[in-house]
Amino acid sequence: MDFKEICRRLSQLPTEGLYQNDFFLTWDKSLEELEAIDQVADAMRALREANKSCRIFDSGLGISLFRDNSTRTRFSYASACNLLGLEVQDLDEKKSQLSHGETVRETANMISFMADVIGIRDDMYIGKGHTYQKNVAAYVQEGYEDGILEQRPTLVNLQCDIDHPTQIMADTLHVMHTFGGAEALKGKKIAMTWAYSPSYGKPLSVPQGAVGLLTRYGADVSLAYPEGYDIMEDVLELGKKQAKASGGSLTVTHSMEEAFADADVVYPKSWAPFAAMEERTELYAQGDQKGIDELEQRLLANNAKFKNWTCSEEMMKKTKDGKALYLHCLPADISGVSCAEGEVDASVFDRYRVPLYKQASFKPYIIAAMIFLQKVKDPAAKLEELWQRDLPRWSK
Amino acid sequence: MDFKEICRRLSQLPTEGLYQNDFFLTWDKSLEELEAIDQVADAMRALREANKSCRIFDSGLGISLFRDNSTRTRFSYASACNLLGLEVQDLDEKKSQLSHGETVRETANMISFMADVIGIRDDMYIGKGHTYQKNVAAYVQEGYEDGILEQRPTLVNLQCDIDHPTQIMADTLHVMHTFGGAEALKGKKIAMTWAYSPSYGKPLSVPQGAVGLLTRYGADVSLAYPEGYDIMEDVLELGKKQAKASGGSLTVTHSMEEAFADADVVYPKSWAPFAAMEERTELYAQGDQKGIDELEQRLLANNAKFKNWTCSEEMMKKTKDGKALYLHCLPADISGVSCAEGEVDASVFDRYRVPLYKQASFKPYIIAAMIFLQKVKDPAAKLEELWQRDLPRWSK
Amino acid sequence: MDFKEICRRLSQLPTEGLYQNDFFLTWDKSLEELEAIDQVADAMRALREANKSCRIFDSGLGISLFRDNSTRTRFSYASACNLLGLEVQDLDEKKSQLSHGETVRETANMISFMADVIGIRDDMYIGKGHTYQKNVAAYVQEGYEDGILEQRPTLVNLQCDIDHPTQIMADTLHVMHTFGGAEALKGKKIAMTWAYSPSYGKPLSVPQGAVGLLTRYGADVSLAYPEGYDIMEDVLELGKKQAKASGGSLTVTHSMEEAFADADVVYPKSWAPFAAMEERTELYAQGDQKGIDELEQRLLANNAKFKNWTCSEEMMKKTKDGKALYLHCLPADISGVSCAEGEVDASVFDRYRVPLYKQASFKPYIIAAMIFLQKVKDPAAKLEELWQRDLPRWSK
Repeated sequence: MDFKEICRRLSQLPTEGLYQNDFFLTWDKSLEELEAIDQVADAMRALREANKSCRIFDSGLGISLFRDNSTRTRFSYASACNLLGLEVQDLDEKKSQLSHGETVRETANMISFMADVIGIRDDMYIGKGHTYQKNVAAYVQEGYEDGILEQRPTLVNLQCDIDHPTQIMADTLHVMHTFGGAEALKGKKIAMTWAYSPSYGKPLSVPQGAVGLLTRYGADVSLAYPEGYDIMEDVLELGKKQAKASGGSLTVTHSMEEAFADADVVYPKSWAPFAAMEERTELYAQGDQKGIDELEQRLLANNAKFKNWTCSEEMMKKTKDGKALYLHCLPADISGVSCAEGEVDASVFDRYRVPLYKQASFKPYIIAAMIFLQKVKDPAAKLEELWQRDLPRWSK
Repeated sequence: MDFKEICRRLSQLPTEGLYQNDFFLTWDKSLEELEAIDQVADAMRALREANKSCRIFDSGLGISLFRDNSTRTRFSYASACNLLGLEVQDLDEKKSQLSHGETVRETANMISFMADVIGIRDDMYIGKGHTYQKNVAAYVQEGYEDGILEQRPTLVNLQCDIDHPTQIMADTLHVMHTFGGAEALKGKKIAMTWAYSPSYGKPLSVPQGAVGLLTRYGADVSLAYPEGYDIMEDVLELGKKQAKASGGSLTVTHSMEEAFADADVVYPKSWAPFAAMEERTELYAQGDQKGIDELEQRLLANNAKFKNWTCSEEMMKKTKDGKALYLHCLPADISGVSCAEGEVDASVFDRYRVPLYKQASFKPYIIAAMIFLQKVKDPAAKLEELWQRDLPRWSK
Repeated sequence: MDFKEICRRLSQLPTEGLYQNDFFLTWDKSLEELEAIDQVADAMRALREANKSCRIFDSGLGISLFRDNSTRTRFSYASACNLLGLEVQDLDEKKSQLSHGETVRETANMISFMADVIGIRDDMYIGKGHTYQKNVAAYVQEGYEDGILEQRPTLVNLQCDIDHPTQIMADTLHVMHTFGGAEALKGKKIAMTWAYSPSYGKPLSVPQGAVGLLTRYGADVSLAYPEGYDIMEDVLELGKKQAKASGGSLTVTHSMEEAFADADVVYPKSWAPFAAMEERTELYAQGDQKGIDELEQRLLANNAKFKNWTCSEEMMKKTKDGKALYLHCLPADISGVSCAEGEVDASVFDRYRVPLYKQASFKPYIIAAMIFLQKVKDPAAKLEELWQRDLPRWSK
């Protein structure tokens, strides 16, 4: 889309609610606010492609806190911060004194004296990650009001136990670009399905994020998983309500075939049963290693019953013209490549490699757009200004 | 204070001795030099609050070397470097080849080809940290004179076995702001007291730093600890001499009550006996793990005799109007919060949380000011220039 | 040399082949291309010494991937990136999801959405490091062509199993500066010799790099090692061919004395036999820990037979006027300092400490020059522009 057109559209959207505010869950935001993020993401890509600097910070820090290993999200966050002029400072809990009796309230303030953004990935324990992020945000707000912090750093959820907004918004923007805009999602069948993986305990934030976001665009979302692999009840209810309001639908099925049948988009990936993750969280809290090991064995054994839940060539044939858009948040468990039997056939994965990598390329821009809208009051005017400023990012 | 007023005052202070020089110990510097650091710290905060960039480096590196875990000091140093335009590059001894027979002289040169500042935290072993810092400084000076280094990186002591200058200067600046300037410290009673903690072996650099700095402002410093918990003899002697010269006093007592009585400021925190730390250093040098374990048990048992050395509500009532300013370098061992019995009652800590966090907020500015004065020849003129330049830090 | 003179000379050299291209091995490049890198390295040092900013990036990322511990190369790369305006983002394989079934192709793309340069050190396993780097480069090229990546990050070899170009080019530039230019190497005798070290398994990339580069300048290169400590056959053959073409020579000898006799330059350092490294690579691939341990013992025992291969004072006396230029990539195993018996006598090392550290100081500039020439189309004009721009790096 044309840069001028993006700015024109953006100027019509309400962005005050995003300014100086946090991003926890997509459903905290209106559809128009989400569109503003998408527009800014596209605008920043256009600026970068035109070799124009997107820096709005001369100096400043983007704090990152990753409680789980990460390549993609870590690099996406670092890229987004760098694009805007912020330096990433990692809060490595092993190198810090957090074990030394320090409270979340204290850490939140101590890292924020010169912090503009805080990105947190905390998806391991059910009922913990989102709460932790809310607490950090509340404490820095309090610190700002008490005059401890000169600026109030805003928070970006880089994945929690409930939602994975930067992932699912990048995925969705990719779908929109593929089909021709948000409007094009109306009536499209999207299959968010469980798939077999030889590992266990993969986060629920992607399927939950999909249910929480895709149901808002009038799509027919089919959520498929073997019995027992339920997602969070609240998110499911929300999805149903949203689907109804948007003129779409949300169907739950226990047949992968049913979900794939005539689907326009398929998103097959492994996740752990919500109930099992709750149990694991409890066992970790009790330090019950024996219980944890037993749970793992039980889950792996249960997973193995559903090896036929895989995105095979045969399964792909059932989709719309056999050519549904295949999505994955990566890395995927590819049969015969990264494991004996996994989420997807190697030939399917290979055929979709380019669109899959493009899908991933939206994440740094989505994160940059979230931060941009948290930090800039009149985003359309600022984008125009950046375009006119025409400061080369790379002086070739 | 008014920005112009700060610059005017700063222009009257002698800063040549700070320029291109290192910062090891507060008592290496004159009172006027320390005031210059305080003034610049306040000026940089004013610049930042006015959204004016403080960058004096277009590019450059701030090396950090932490030989102990750290959140606050690490983030303070990173914030200070970023504020001035330097990128932090961490010398992680585990990822380096330091074990590979490399000498301090060699490392000091190898990391300094493009380094503007080196910040070192090395507080673990008595007689080691300060010496190590001095050696690094001497080697980069030599490297500069030999034409190996194009610029001579300056050193900032981020904590050593003797002093913790960035901490105690931040603490003191907080006290000055609370009471109305350096002059207001004259005649104030400041209780630097030991307090019980269930951990052992906490560094002596804070009490020593307090004795080494606060005695210079005409305050009545009361150093209190249970018998046996002596600090470094040299620092104590220095403190006595300085107190006399400044018209204040330094009293050693073995009664917390006595120290708290009518105190204007209290700084109760745990530390290890100097003699025990010397012993531990020796045991580590010999690799005597059994001896180290026995020493730990002995120290913990001894600590436990003094659980009544705690900053309780009762103890606070003994202070001036029951309202002394409570200080801590954080994190504190809070009774019933981070441990069963610790340095301070939860209710006392909670009441002082906002001033405590403000106290901590001075540290990044103190570090930035130290670096600024090491790097800028005419600091008053440069600050005026930064104010006039009016380059937005954050382009909102 | 005069800055204008450097730019004039540079404008006569062919640099199109370096632009937007990778740097794997010195022998991939023409002598004139290598001279261009040397000229730019000198120019950037001149700019920095004149306190002129070398930034050509307003924002951007320099990815680093170190598969082995490193101080010098890590800091050199970070310094070079910072000098040009790039922020280093480390791909720490322990913190990433690389074990999680992710392919090299995927990682290469995922880290490159906003990457301008990728620096890789991967020297541990024979037949792996170079191949890995080639693969990464091929995958990002493919990603660029497929429209996944907006820019194609260029690759800098920070050491592989075959060559160590940034090291050997820095070493060679140091030799050129010492003797008065590239021309002065003609007819000089350079002894690249094995030396005893109590450790085993040191990389072959330095001696191979020396053979691959120094033979191109008309020097008489004497490669000396105890029988069995052969380097890669291909590199040796290449060296012979190059020596012949350049009017120099490459002699292999199994006598350190012979190599040192009348040498102008000596580079004594330990390395492992190529065949043993191949064997080790195989054992690692099979996960045969017992075999690895046995190999280590065997290699250490074999090394110990050649303790007399050391750069002693006596040995130095055999060189030209007893004053050959002593080189080492550091850290060296210094007899009586970092080990009982090692590569070099303490008195020899001490006498050459200043030139040795200067030798090391060329590495950040060589890396910066490689990146500069990968990123700038008309380097002579850009250097002139940077000089004229006269933007202070450090606003004193």
